[in-house]
Amino acid sequence: MQTHLITGAAGFIGSNLAARLRRRGDAVVLLDNLSNGKLANLRALQGDRLVHFARVDCADADAVLAAVQSAGFAPIDLVWHLAANSDIAAGIADLRIDVRDTFLTTAGVLAAMQALDLRRLNFASSSAVYGDFGGRAVDEDAGPLQPISNYGAMKLASEAQIRAACESFLENANIFRFPNVVGVPATHGVLLDFVRKLRATPGHLEVLGDGRQKKPYLHASDLLDAMLFAAAKLERGFNVLNIGPSDDGISVREIAEITRAAVSPDAAIAYGTAPGGWVGDVPRFSYSLDRLRRLGWRCDCSSKAAICKALNEIIAQEGEVTCSA
Amino acid sequence: MQTHLITGAAGFIGSNLAARLRRRGDAVVLLDNLSNGKLANLRALQGDRLVHFARVDCADADAVLAAVQSAGFAPIDLVWHLAANSDIAAGIADLRIDVRDTFLTTAGVLAAMQALDLRRLNFASSSAVYGDFGGRAVDEDAGPLQPISNYGAMKLASEAQIRAACESFLENANIFRFPNVVGVPATHGVLLDFVRKLRATPGHLEVLGDGRQKKPYLHASDLLDAMLFAAAKLERGFNVLNIGPSDDGISVREIAEITRAAVSPDAAIAYGTAPGGWVGDVPRFSYSLDRLRRLGWRCDCSSKAAICKALNEIIAQEGEVTCSA
Repeated sequence: MQTHLITGAAGFIGSNLAARLRRRGDAVVLLDNLSNGKLANLRALQGDRLVHFARVDCADADAVLAAVQSAGFAPIDLVWHLAANSDIAAGIADLRIDVRDTFLTTAGVLAAMQALDLRRLNFASSSAVYGDFGGRAVDEDAGPLQPISNYGAMKLASEAQIRAACESFLENANIFRFPNVVGVPATHGVLLDFVRKLRATPGHLEVLGDGRQKKPYLHASDLLDAMLFAAAKLERGFNVLNIGPSDDGISVREIAEITRAAVSPDAAIAYGTAPGGWVGDVPRFSYSLDRLRRLGWRCDCSSKAAICKALNEIIAQEGEVTCSA
Repeated sequence: MQTHLITGAAGFIGSNLAARLRRRGDAVVLLDNLSNGKLANLRALQGDRLVHFARVDCADADAVLAAVQSAGFAPIDLVWHLAANSDIAAGIADLRIDVRDTFLTTAGVLAAMQALDLRRLNFASSSAVYGDFGGRAVDEDAGPLQPISNYGAMKLASEAQIRAACESFLENANIFRFPNVVGVPATHGVLLDFVRKLRATPGHLEVLGDGRQKKPYLHASDLLDAMLFAAAKLERGFNVLNIGPSDDGISVREIAEITRAAVSPDAAIAYGTAPGGWVGDVPRFSYSLDRLRRLGWRCDCSSKAAICKALNEIIAQEGEVTCSA
C-alpha cells in the first residue's frame, strides 16, 4: 500500500485518479480549492478512512503543508500535481488566472514538498506547451516550445520549475503531457459544450472555428492506465512523456457530427471561418508517442472511440441516457 | 526621439541601458524596486527632465501602471524588461525568490502593458534557460530546454508567457538570451567575487568548482550594442536571439589567474572538486550565434578581452586603479 497526495483532486482527472488509487488499496490525501472542482465528484469516497480531503489553495505552500500534516497519513510516497485552471479561454482574457491557478499552484506544491521532504512528483502537463507545430508529430525533445495560450505557457513554466527542483531536492519527477482528455465528470471541453448547446437549441449547433481543427483525444481511463504504468516504471530522475491515443486525432467536424447524431439528429451545424476555435487554440496537433511505447505502454483506443465512449457518459451525466453514436 | 520604459533600471544592465538611451536623445521611464539595484547607479541621470524614476515592484501590475501614467511621458514606444533576481545561488536555496523577482515581475509588466496598450517588448533572458547541453553550441530552436536553476526556470517561464502574449496583445517581443555579462556597476558575478576575496585575503583565492567551467563572457557595452541593433531590426513578431562574444568562452581557471595577476600576484588559488561551482551552475556552455550574425551583428571582442576590460573597471569601482592585466 502506498500513500498519495493529489492536488486538484475534485476535478475531472483528479477525482478519477483518487477513485482508481483507492480501488487498488492505496491511501489518498486530496487537495482542491473547489474553484472548478466539485466535492460531488468525490462523493463515492466519502466516509472512507483511507481518504482525507482538505479545501486548500495549492498556491499557498503553508496551507498545503498544514493540510498534509493534519491528514496524519505520513509518509507520502507520491505526489500527483493536477491542480490548474482548466478554462483556457478565460486564461487568455485575464493573464492572472493561469499565473495563479496553473503556475503558482506548482510553486506552492514544490515549496511544500521541499518542506515535507517529499521527493517524487507526477505532473499533469499538456500538449499546449508545444504551441503550433502545424500538425507535425512532435516528440518530447522538440524545440522551440512556443505555447500560444497562457495555459500552455504556465504549464511550461511549471515544467521548468520542476526540472530545476530535480537539481536540488526532487529525486523523481514525471512530466505527463496530456492530449485532450474526455470522460466524466466532465467540467469543460468540446463534448460538454456541444451537448449543452444542442440541449439548449436542438435545431442548431454553432461551432467555434472552421471545424477542421484536428487533435488527439484520449479517454480518462486510458490516461490513468498510462500514467500509473509509467509512474511505476520511472522511479528516478526527470522524465517527460507524451500520452495519447492510438491515432493522430479526430476533427472538430467529426465530433460535431457524432454529437449531433446522438443528441439532436436534425440540427444544422454552423461553422466559423477561423482555423482555430479561439485565441490560443492550436488548430492541428499531433504527437509522437514513441517514448511511451518504448516504455511498454500502448493505447488500443482511437480518438473517435474515446469521443464516442465519453459522449455516452456525458449524455448520461447531463441527465438523459439515450445514445447510440 | 523615442520613449522607453526600463524595468530593473537601477541594476547593472538597466543603468547602462538608461544612460545609453539618454545619450542618443531618447526619454526614459525607469522602474526598480531597489532590492538589488541602487539609486547611485542612476546618479548621472539625476535632474534630467527626460528621465523619470519610480521605485516600483514590477510584480505589482497596478503599481507599474500608476508609475508609467504619473511619469507623463506617454506614449511609451518600447519596454525593456530587465527586472529579475540576479543572485542565482540565493534562488536555489529559496524557491520563492525567482518566482517573485524573476517571473512575477514579467507577469506584472505584461499585465500593465496590456492595460496601457503597449505592444513592443524587449526581454532580458538568459543562457540559463537551456540547462546543460554539455558544451555543444546551442541555437535558439534547440530542445529540450531543461534549466537546472530556478533562475533559468523562471526566465523560461517568462519567455513562455511573453510568447503567449504575442498571440493576444503584443505585436513584437524580442527575447535576448544573455551570456555572462561583465562590466560596471558590478553587483555580482565571478569577477567581483574574486576581486573582493583577494582584497580580503590577499594570499589566498578560493574558487567554487574545479575551475574548468567554461562559458562565454560579453562586456555590457557590447551587449547593449547587440540589443539596440537587433531591436531596431526586429520590430514585429516574436524573436529569440542568443547574444554572445566572438569566441566560445573562457574558463574560470583563466579568470582566476587574470584576476590574481591584477590584484594580488602572490595569492595561492585553491580549486574545489565539483565540475560546477554550485547547484544550478552549468559547467560548460556554448552558444550558436548564427541568427544574430545573419541579422548583421557580430561582436569583435573575445571573452578574455571582455573579462580584462571589466576587471579594470571593477578594480576601479572597488577603489583602486592599479591594474595591467
